[in-house]
Amino acid sequence: MSPKPLVPSFSSSIIEDNRSDGYWVETFHFSKEDRVPGVITSGLVSGVIEFLDNPIASAEFQKSHNPKSTQTNESLLSSFAAWNKYEIGKFHSPVAVVAVDITKSGLTDIVICHDYGPFMLECDMKGGHITWLENPGREGLDKGHWKERYIGRWPAMHRIKAGFFTQKSFLEIIAASVVYGEHDKTTPIPIIRFQAPEKVLEATEWPHDIIDDRSFTVIHEITVKKLSGPNGLDSMIISSREGATWLYYEDNEWKRDLITIGEPRAPGQSKISESPGSGDHWGTGCADVGRIGDDPVAYIATLDPFHGTTACVYTKADRGLKEKKWKRHILDVYGTPNQQMKTGDGPGHYIVCADFDGDGDDEFLLSLFGSLDRDEKGESIPPNTGPNPNKGIMYYKAIDLKNGVFAKWKIAEESSARIAIGGFSGTGRIDLVSMAYNVARYYEEPHPVVTIHTNEFAPKVPQQTAAPITSTVWDGEGMVYFVDPVTIQSSHSLPLIEVANYAISVEIHPKKGKVPVLNGEGVKVLYGSISDGSGARNPLGTAPFPAASTTLTKDSSMEADPEKGAILLRLRPIHQKTFWHGAGEVHVKNIFDVGQIGLQLKPLHFIKVENLWWGGKFKGVDFYNMSGFYFRFLEDKTPIAHIQFWTAGPGVNCGVHNHSGDIFQEIHICLSPGTETGGMSRLKDAYVDTPPDQLNGLPQKAFDHLPLQLLYEHGGLWYRDSYGNAVRGRDNVVSYPWHKWQAGNGSNIDIWMALEFNPALKL
Amino acid sequence: MSPKPLVPSFSSSIIEDNRSDGYWVETFHFSKEDRVPGVITSGLVSGVIEFLDNPIASAEFQKSHNPKSTQTNESLLSSFAAWNKYEIGKFHSPVAVVAVDITKSGLTDIVICHDYGPFMLECDMKGGHITWLENPGREGLDKGHWKERYIGRWPAMHRIKAGFFTQKSFLEIIAASVVYGEHDKTTPIPIIRFQAPEKVLEATEWPHDIIDDRSFTVIHEITVKKLSGPNGLDSMIISSREGATWLYYEDNEWKRDLITIGEPRAPGQSKISESPGSGDHWGTGCADVGRIGDDPVAYIATLDPFHGTTACVYTKADRGLKEKKWKRHILDVYGTPNQQMKTGDGPGHYIVCADFDGDGDDEFLLSLFGSLDRDEKGESIPPNTGPNPNKGIMYYKAIDLKNGVFAKWKIAEESSARIAIGGFSGTGRIDLVSMAYNVARYYEEPHPVVTIHTNEFAPKVPQQTAAPITSTVWDGEGMVYFVDPVTIQSSHSLPLIEVANYAISVEIHPKKGKVPVLNGEGVKVLYGSISDGSGARNPLGTAPFPAASTTLTKDSSMEADPEKGAILLRLRPIHQKTFWHGAGEVHVKNIFDVGQIGLQLKPLHFIKVENLWWGGKFKGVDFYNMSGFYFRFLEDKTPIAHIQFWTAGPGVNCGVHNHSGDIFQEIHICLSPGTETGGMSRLKDAYVDTPPDQLNGLPQKAFDHLPLQLLYEHGGLWYRDSYGNAVRGRDNVVSYPWHKWQAGNGSNIDIWMALEFNPALKL
Repeated sequence: MSPKPLVPSFSSSIIEDNRSDGYWVETFHFSKEDRVPGVITSGLVSGVIEFLDNPIASAEFQKSHNPKSTQTNESLLSSFAAWNKYEIGKFHSPVAVVAVDITKSGLTDIVICHDYGPFMLECDMKGGHITWLENPGREGLDKGHWKERYIGRWPAMHRIKAGFFTQKSFLEIIAASVVYGEHDKTTPIPIIRFQAPEKVLEATEWPHDIIDDRSFTVIHEITVKKLSGPNGLDSMIISSREGATWLYYEDNEWKRDLITIGEPRAPGQSKISESPGSGDHWGTGCADVGRIGDDPVAYIATLDPFHGTTACVYTKADRGLKEKKWKRHILDVYGTPNQQMKTGDGPGHYIVCADFDGDGDDEFLLSLFGSLDRDEKGESIPPNTGPNPNKGIMYYKAIDLKNGVFAKWKIAEESSARIAIGGFSGTGRIDLVSMAYNVARYYEEPHPVVTIHTNEFAPKVPQQTAAPITSTVWDGEGMVYFVDPVTIQSSHSLPLIEVANYAISVEIHPKKGKVPVLNGEGVKVLYGSISDGSGARNPLGTAPFPAASTTLTKDSSMEADPEKGAILLRLRPIHQKTFWHGAGEVHVKNIFDVGQIGLQLKPLHFIKVENLWWGGKFKGVDFYNMSGFYFRFLEDKTPIAHIQFWTAGPGVNCGVHNHSGDIFQEIHICLSPGTETGGMSRLKDAYVDTPPDQLNGLPQKAFDHLPLQLLYEHGGLWYRDSYGNAVRGRDNVVSYPWHKWQAGNGSNIDIWMALEFNPALKL
Repeated sequence: MSPKPLVPSFSSSIIEDNRSDGYWVETFHFSKEDRVPGVITSGLVSGVIEFLDNPIASAEFQKSHNPKSTQTNESLLSSFAAWNKYEIGKFHSPVAVVAVDITKSGLTDIVICHDYGPFMLECDMKGGHITWLENPGREGLDKGHWKERYIGRWPAMHRIKAGFFTQKSFLEIIAASVVYGEHDKTTPIPIIRFQAPEKVLEATEWPHDIIDDRSFTVIHEITVKKLSGPNGLDSMIISSREGATWLYYEDNEWKRDLITIGEPRAPGQSKISESPGSGDHWGTGCADVGRIGDDPVAYIATLDPFHGTTACVYTKADRGLKEKKWKRHILDVYGTPNQQMKTGDGPGHYIVCADFDGDGDDEFLLSLFGSLDRDEKGESIPPNTGPNPNKGIMYYKAIDLKNGVFAKWKIAEESSARIAIGGFSGTGRIDLVSMAYNVARYYEEPHPVVTIHTNEFAPKVPQQTAAPITSTVWDGEGMVYFVDPVTIQSSHSLPLIEVANYAISVEIHPKKGKVPVLNGEGVKVLYGSISDGSGARNPLGTAPFPAASTTLTKDSSMEADPEKGAILLRLRPIHQKTFWHGAGEVHVKNIFDVGQIGLQLKPLHFIKVENLWWGGKFKGVDFYNMSGFYFRFLEDKTPIAHIQFWTAGPGVNCGVHNHSGDIFQEIHICLSPGTETGGMSRLKDAYVDTPPDQLNGLPQKAFDHLPLQLLYEHGGLWYRDSYGNAVRGRDNVVSYPWHKWQAGNGSNIDIWMALEFNPALKL
């Protein structure tokens, strides 16, 4: 969890006034071309289904037809009048609305259940129809109601959801009534799965089957989420008198996992009572699932029970490898004493989780519609017209999830039946639109309105899932992880260390990313390639030893590989001295910063080789080492390369070796040619039968020698097969001829960098 | 995860030298009376089982017999010689050791499997015996080997663990061979469950059954943890050629859940090959489970495969409500090229997770025994005698678990076969003891030693699971959660606010906790009680209205309730003025600090009641409110009380009401009697038939009036039944007579605090 939660701040404006009632609001991306969504609204009594067009969406649509428009998005959103309203359908007592592209045209259609009846206990036993409305496109918006087509029905139909619940090929609509039928809260309700037929425009109804008709009563909400993992099927949380239940399809059958019984049934509560005041509601009324960090199912937020009073979160308790147990934390109990009698009279109606503050953790919102009070005869007392504690939207944020400690802010004062969330303002933040509650003869909020609450506080740039460059400490060295360069949009850089006359940093560049270079800088590619148009530089692109090539650059702009992008080291001259007499004097400055993750890397410095675990044979030799940095890919942790630094004084033989105990492809870059002719020496073929313990005694004429100039690298020494690939020896080592760094006889020391590449990586 | 991981720092000393070999080390609490453990060590060739007695434990035992001893624990631990060594048994080729109290005497016994054979492919087909040694008590330590008793056998017996795996009544020993038998890596190995008989001292062997004999080959480790939740049975991670598998008993059967296949079997790897260099190891060699925050199974750390090279962590990926998928992150590949051929020749041997730095998250340690290299004929090359990269103990800490980013430190240079963890230094930190690896004809570390690494960096006081007082913001007010006072050992305090002449703080005190009070302070109990010996103060202890009592104190020390402890408000005079002319002038200072959790409470201030949502009837009245603070229990979130503050000017009638819309038991405490005779007025019985809308017009003689003096509270006004409990009315409200705060006619304002107690709580 973030240590510094932001204080939530929303600016609100009414986007629909003069409504006669209010029940539903649904986020509605009119077309897949639209950058921002509008909303669908409806009321149970008026029966009108309306599309409120987001002024940004309509303006952007107009602009694509009339590019001369200059209106800004901000000015559009601030203008109440700009949310154009279109009546797209009218039904008797419509309840739920779901938006989904049924025709696969790229235009979002609408599914509605209607002919509900005035309220649940007086539901229309011949009603509960499910109809879908075909989106006619923006050109058809002024032509009245959308074309209706039929899906199916069941009495008291109350919630419908769209998704892919049993398979991923044909769209499915899940439908659940609130009660089994008229005055029947006790018979389990059928949850019906309708599957889209191939010819949706010709079908007279959709084929359907029953998911469950023996488990749930008084279903108030169905919440659809991918609860079997992000690549799984859609599944559901059913909020019913039985509590909150995960309903999902697995192994060719529907399974139910009870998360919580919700508000327990109190002594005296009767299953069959219907009269107000008797308190025949228990279980859960609404639920959603909250993510914290990398756990997408970190908590369940619920409103318990039906039209409930009790805001709860359930956190994981008594955890093991299978996480089954949830601990209930009652955050708040809302409502007047009468509402707290659990008669289904509110004040809570809806719960939704989302990451409003953009910190990677989900907060949740609770809709409170208001104080519905009843007199001693059970008659409704008209609701308070102003704000009150049982009306509005509450915003809860987890502070200490394990202990169920949240912070709470009230972010809206108006009656809220339901909330639609989405990027309505187009800023990248999550905004919300709320519908006031007004259902005749139940709770009639005076002047029901639709209000947008625009997120004013979250950062506008959403968090990236992984930083392009991640650093940590690794047994006294620096470790740098990189994402695959093809996944990034811009270049990133990380300082590593200053050595001799160079500040060395590592960079990652996207495909075709611009890599500006300055005169005198060295650039060494670790992965991918860069090109200045005349030729590409690759990690292992230099011809085999004794060839050499420069890493030096002139003022220009190079470009990263068009297929792979690039990861590279940049060596920037820092106007230090260029020659040194001893390793202890060499400029070394540690600039690798892991402080932001609370770590510290003990400063790197040159260590005399005789003091290293393998350096016993170099007693008294002016030969030093400083190691180094690891470079790996973050996703699969594949090593790319490791670098370390060396110095050798005049005349020093750094030891003849052939890497029989290592598996890498090594090259060296000269940072200071202090001995003038220092560089790589390779044993001549004529001497290959020399016993290994006599190799260091051979005269220099036994070697082919390549002096390395400043910022030059030598071609790889390893043996290659006819395809140019490294030859592998016993135990999979990379086969090398015997070789050594041999210093010349100048008066300063050689300083160089060794790069050890992963031979398993195609470079 | 903590944002500032501590850099690990251990001081090491050798506690056993002059060993001829080394294989096992096991934490050993000699007796349940001992505060700190010692260790059991053993070697495969010497066959000697030794108890190394922790000098602190032996000194503390001596001290309890000879209280004159003055040696400190620190001086004891720093002394190598002080770890007395006792040979407690000797066997042919003992392998695993487990410590458990078999006799239920309070003394820990030892179980050993032995007669293994020289190494796994040449295992003794008549061996694999499991024997237990009876702890004779400290008095018997000088009397040689401990009494041996028999449990059972299977060839190549290699790992044994103790616990309660299928039930919680009879001790179970789980035993697994490393291979099925001589030169047989391919036949699945029987995992055997031995169950302790009732008469363990008389039994000739223990009854046993087979848990599984068709699933696992080359079992290198069994890790026992409670993976079905902290209250579940013990279960196991089996590290075998099949990978890491959770093996557990549920619903009357043994179940296997594969966590990972570990190191994949490479092309060309043969199941039946035995010769060195052919690379016939894959899967997992060792595993442990790491906790992060409140997730006890946040990651799995493994060493892959058998005597492996590859340090991995598995993190949760593609997560849903059932968490099944684990993503592999290869953190490091160790070993010489020959070791990396997966011949079972190391260098890794053991993995263990624990919270070494005390931040609530588990780190893990990896034991590396050394570079076991072989020449071209497959003959072992003698190991390097000094430190090298494939020898020692690595410490890994999670930095970004989701992305598998860890930090790594090398905390020991010496060869490590196995690690025993425990509070050896008695500081509350987790220390470790490591055994060097020396098994003849396999890997023979020169001079094998047992080394203790004493944790020098973790905080000495372990984290509490929940802070006694937790605060957050709650819709513009302060929320304070308390643990149950009976769970705490010391008192804690939290500043709330300064109002008028008082700094108000809330305190929690343990049972019988001392509550010092100063002259002039007010103390109001919210939960439990406090007493000065002459009588207890309770939250609702004042006799019913019109009684009153003081919350004032004189210099003394009171004591919290011996059964319940206490939660209380303290009102400390701050030498401000004592009277004010208007609410706007009243001293108010916000001192409620939620900054440490990144929150901020908008400063509380007095608001004119006419501007509150319910205050429309008080237009123009000098009547102000400031709300307030909630007090609740953390565990179940049960409300205790809510407080708010009020002011009223001279002559103000604060409105006659009877709380018909509230459910609480309310009392008031006077903070400034500015109108001189302000206080609670209760409607006289004679006037009860007055229509409610005329109550505010009644003359003051219609009321019984109780002026409240400074720091006095009045007795509760609510109606009570014959047991003294509050009478409840319609909708469960607490029934009150009509009442009001009525200001007097002095020249200043009244300031008072209202406390609304939860009537469902027994106070």
